Amino acid sequence: MIFSSDNWAGASAPVSEALTRHASGLVPAYGNDPLTDAVTRRFSQIFERDVAVFFVATGTAANALALSAYARPGGVIFSHQSAHIQVDECGAPEFFTGGGKLRGLPGANGKIDPADLIRLMGEHPDGNPMHGQVSAVSISQATECGTVYRPDEIRALAEAAHARGIPLHMDGARFANAVAFLGLSPAEVTWRAGVDVLSFGATKNGCWCAEAVIFFNPDSALQFAYLRKRAGHLFSKSRFAAAQFEGYLADGHWLANAGHANAMARRLAQGLEAAGNRLAWPVEANEVFPVLSRATIARLRAAGALFYEWPADGVDPDQSAVRLVASFATDPADVDRFVAVAAG
Amino acid sequence: MIFSSDNWAGASAPVSEALTRHASGLVPAYGNDPLTDAVTRRFSQIFERDVAVFFVATGTAANALALSAYARPGGVIFSHQSAHIQVDECGAPEFFTGGGKLRGLPGANGKIDPADLIRLMGEHPDGNPMHGQVSAVSISQATECGTVYRPDEIRALAEAAHARGIPLHMDGARFANAVAFLGLSPAEVTWRAGVDVLSFGATKNGCWCAEAVIFFNPDSALQFAYLRKRAGHLFSKSRFAAAQFEGYLADGHWLANAGHANAMARRLAQGLEAAGNRLAWPVEANEVFPVLSRATIARLRAAGALFYEWPADGVDPDQSAVRLVASFATDPADVDRFVAVAAG
Amino acid sequence: MIFSSDNWAGASAPVSEALTRHASGLVPAYGNDPLTDAVTRRFSQIFERDVAVFFVATGTAANALALSAYARPGGVIFSHQSAHIQVDECGAPEFFTGGGKLRGLPGANGKIDPADLIRLMGEHPDGNPMHGQVSAVSISQATECGTVYRPDEIRALAEAAHARGIPLHMDGARFANAVAFLGLSPAEVTWRAGVDVLSFGATKNGCWCAEAVIFFNPDSALQFAYLRKRAGHLFSKSRFAAAQFEGYLADGHWLANAGHANAMARRLAQGLEAAGNRLAWPVEANEVFPVLSRATIARLRAAGALFYEWPADGVDPDQSAVRLVASFATDPADVDRFVAVAAG
Amino acid sequence: MIFSSDNWAGASAPVSEALTRHASGLVPAYGNDPLTDAVTRRFSQIFERDVAVFFVATGTAANALALSAYARPGGVIFSHQSAHIQVDECGAPEFFTGGGKLRGLPGANGKIDPADLIRLMGEHPDGNPMHGQVSAVSISQATECGTVYRPDEIRALAEAAHARGIPLHMDGARFANAVAFLGLSPAEVTWRAGVDVLSFGATKNGCWCAEAVIFFNPDSALQFAYLRKRAGHLFSKSRFAAAQFEGYLADGHWLANAGHANAMARRLAQGLEAAGNRLAWPVEANEVFPVLSRATIARLRAAGALFYEWPADGVDPDQSAVRLVASFATDPADVDRFVAVAAG
Repeated sequence: MIFSSDNWAGASAPVSEALTRHASGLVPAYGNDPLTDAVTRRFSQIFERDVAVFFVATGTAANALALSAYARPGGVIFSHQSAHIQVDECGAPEFFTGGGKLRGLPGANGKIDPADLIRLMGEHPDGNPMHGQVSAVSISQATECGTVYRPDEIRALAEAAHARGIPLHMDGARFANAVAFLGLSPAEVTWRAGVDVLSFGATKNGCWCAEAVIFFNPDSALQFAYLRKRAGHLFSKSRFAAAQFEGYLADGHWLANAGHANAMARRLAQGLEAAGNRLAWPVEANEVFPVLSRATIARLRAAGALFYEWPADGVDPDQSAVRLVASFATDPADVDRFVAVAAG
Repeated sequence: MIFSSDNWAGASAPVSEALTRHASGLVPAYGNDPLTDAVTRRFSQIFERDVAVFFVATGTAANALALSAYARPGGVIFSHQSAHIQVDECGAPEFFTGGGKLRGLPGANGKIDPADLIRLMGEHPDGNPMHGQVSAVSISQATECGTVYRPDEIRALAEAAHARGIPLHMDGARFANAVAFLGLSPAEVTWRAGVDVLSFGATKNGCWCAEAVIFFNPDSALQFAYLRKRAGHLFSKSRFAAAQFEGYLADGHWLANAGHANAMARRLAQGLEAAGNRLAWPVEANEVFPVLSRATIARLRAAGALFYEWPADGVDPDQSAVRLVASFATDPADVDRFVAVAAG
Repeated sequence: MIFSSDNWAGASAPVSEALTRHASGLVPAYGNDPLTDAVTRRFSQIFERDVAVFFVATGTAANALALSAYARPGGVIFSHQSAHIQVDECGAPEFFTGGGKLRGLPGANGKIDPADLIRLMGEHPDGNPMHGQVSAVSISQATECGTVYRPDEIRALAEAAHARGIPLHMDGARFANAVAFLGLSPAEVTWRAGVDVLSFGATKNGCWCAEAVIFFNPDSALQFAYLRKRAGHLFSKSRFAAAQFEGYLADGHWLANAGHANAMARRLAQGLEAAGNRLAWPVEANEVFPVLSRATIARLRAAGALFYEWPADGVDPDQSAVRLVASFATDPADVDRFVAVAAG
Repeated sequence: MIFSSDNWAGASAPVSEALTRHASGLVPAYGNDPLTDAVTRRFSQIFERDVAVFFVATGTAANALALSAYARPGGVIFSHQSAHIQVDECGAPEFFTGGGKLRGLPGANGKIDPADLIRLMGEHPDGNPMHGQVSAVSISQATECGTVYRPDEIRALAEAAHARGIPLHMDGARFANAVAFLGLSPAEVTWRAGVDVLSFGATKNGCWCAEAVIFFNPDSALQFAYLRKRAGHLFSKSRFAAAQFEGYLADGHWLANAGHANAMARRLAQGLEAAGNRLAWPVEANEVFPVLSRATIARLRAAGALFYEWPADGVDPDQSAVRLVASFATDPADVDRFVAVAAG
């Protein structure tokens, strides 16, 4: 009954097999190999557009380097206050952007509101060096609250960003879960809705170590090969990342993995709600945030369940919200047992 | 006949198998898993001392982050002028050290001389902010010329560095090749000779992506977890790196791989010398730098051989030095064919 | 009727005369001159303790460099949300600290509350790289709201900072105004109350360009000469700064200037309050923040008064808070005329 | 007999008087005052072109910030190996460019040779992230050897830089001395010869603290207001810098000061050469580098002369080169006495 995080899982079989399949043979290093090329073409196909693709080692690197491609001196980056870039990256975005400032916005269900964004950006008018300058807007898809932006919500934020001359970045650590939930094409939820650059995460959803920064406008990526190498994120054996993506993207495996994780989350949510527990936020991707009594939490822990307590609003003193994360590797039997133990 | 670089190879069987073996199961992320612990203990055993071990994604990251742990404002880092940190890392050491200056030293066979080092460090006396301050000395083991520092050579450089209050860093991208050549214990060629921090490279010698920064004095590593995370180099699924090291370090596999690569390099060297070709530098590890006539080079390329030309001193206009790199995956038949084609 | 800012004034007579007095003669550059030494001794006398003194060009540089002396990777700096370092320095603190994160706290009258501080620091527990690490607490004295911290308020914040192993920095852009208001010794309101490092501002209060970073524990300043030079803030003709401080600190001139500015602010406040206007915050230093009707504001502007509108809570739509800043050069006649025009 | 450096002098009378003249009155801060505007127009007049002018606190800041305006990730900056940015700025250029690498070139008389420059830039071909990318060429005018680039020499270097798509920066810490020597217009020795950005130094030649970064193509300066503010180099009382420049640039005072310093240097050189001493480099600006016997050096020091020994080639063991710097404040009697003592 491990629901601590989706990154507690290992690698799914097609990913693991692809690594084994490509382990032998001598090919060019540093991304000049045919497999890296093939994967890049595959991404262009998936996104229905020529994209520039750069593998990096972690989601934190993907986010921080993507934002650094648009860095400005005194630059300010806007995101939800619960965003991974704000809370969980040890200042990597600030570091790679040469000291950018991250401003967090409140917002229901982990989403930022265009009106709030426009107002906060207004505190940094163009041409006044004292207050710095706007440099990027970043959203998480799926959000840190397990919800999913709809295309029109994304478009409204993109328009607000573009009106100020800055890009919209999407932290897609759980991009597959969002796409699987929406049932829309990857293009519709990214560049067609105004996203300029995407951190395409695959690690949480079945890979060992496979993250890609995807630029929808290759002109914005002209310096990225240098930014990545300077950060120590250019793999010498690039095909090790490429092989994982090959396995991940083949035959819809990535969406199948995400679909399973999402289904497990819904199953958790339904079971917990049926037993009378409230959810802090709607369950749309692979995360569930029930508000449980402390007695229930203790009983679950005693039964061996692993999960984290999580901050949420409107929680009574004898309760706590908790975060339950399902992954491609989640066993339905574990879900059912968790629900049963929680029901008491 | 691919001798372009040892990072053109993939993963050796024990490494690949270890990855597959650990692909399933749910374990803590971010290095808090039992396998990462076990590998850390294994490193302490190999180095006969409690060491602090940090996995990172690339050799460039290992070097740059290791040096950043000792960074000082206006800091100056000393290395051979051909060092990887000087020539091949796109300014990563400068970037991660907050603008450190890298000063390159000449020196026979890719090694720096203590007298030269002391003299150059003397241009940065303590207490004069104009000229910055010494902050680290870095050596490559094996060197970029395919040679190997002896323990007493290392000790002399360590003493010069320590006399100025700064550490000795070792770039061990080809550490296994050096150890295999010397036939000494890892401890003897590192901390017992005065090395403070080691970039332990395993990628070139049989792994997909396995580099570790090893601090011999854990006190120097107190901030390193933050430096690494801030750089986006903390793997969420840390066991993917740990598994590679498990396979790599088990049963002497790492030294067996290196021994094979070194033997292939010697075989190449002997064959080429027997045919009358001069070597730019002695062959001690897995790299060979013969000086070949342009006609020979053309013949080799026509036969499909892959390798790079390389700068070297004292080469006639109708000749060029070339670099030939052997790896764990080098086939002796390819070596013999190369020698035969070179012989004309 | 210029109340835009105290930095609209020029240099006071004793400061200007000191510059003229020292303009000729050849003396060592880069701070190795007798006058710089004398001024440093004067600071030690004023603070009743051996202090390390470093001149820099601006208050922004003083703050950002002072904080950089305590920087940590992934470091987080805490201050009031209205602090100059948060709002008006174009990311300089973030830049010089290598990407530090600034977290702003709310708090009445421009002051931060120890309980709030402790709670927010608690989001960055030691040893968890994800969330970064606490690195400094910074307060403004006088605050951005024109109020002044009392020694016990400072001590409580210092204790909270020190309990987490981090320093308390004081942005003293208006330090003289605070000292003049409190009527206490400079020592009592700084190191005796737990302040570790002070940005001692003199520019706003009668100098042209005279800011000093003052370390109360010289051990913390060991790297500062390098930090300053690397930032381009080591004056070659250091005596130009020293001369200003000589004039500024002689015969209590600095406190006389501040006393005048504070008195002008009180005179403004009393006149405006007598006419029935509310003040957003108590007037303790040289700034007054009355809440005026839009009609009054328009009438003042029409009469030639210069000042800025300012954000404040609880202001009706037909009103606005405004900021009025008095300086050493403020003419009482201007104050009285402003009050008269405001009265209608 | 003080010939240590031109920055041992104070402020010349017209500069000092201008400061006093503008000390009173309330004007806008941060460069929005009429005097700053007037000085900017004066610079455009002097350079016969609309220029963008930014005051900063030091020559180191001017150089480092000017170069940062053209920074690229993994960027490499080329200059003479004796350049101030290489030797005397504590890593400021590296710091402000986000970790740029400075490569020093040899070259007779402190000047770099276009052929050498082109060859060294060739080690950083476009499109190969490993080796970083060229980002700027910087020359000192006058050079660190007291020589002066001719316009055609500058043009050749500018063409080499522009052919690689990078700018030519001129460190004009002693720009006035160079212009006075050449007898050409400021335009002829800067933008008409291909210079893109100039560090216009006035501190050494009669000001207290007056340095300006001058962009000949204002489009390159669009981010500079942010770069400067982020570095803490935006003066609040900007008119203190403007006033100095007003005095400095009026009535040819700046060239008169430089002409005096140059004349004093020539007088020194002639006297020393007449006594049989060799000069390490030609005397063209305000610096003289005679090669003196150690006995002569001892005799001069005993007589109270102050100067530094200096590295130079081809100097016998019983000799040393020394650097003698004349300034606007150098007294001819001191020159004559120095020559007399040196003659023995």
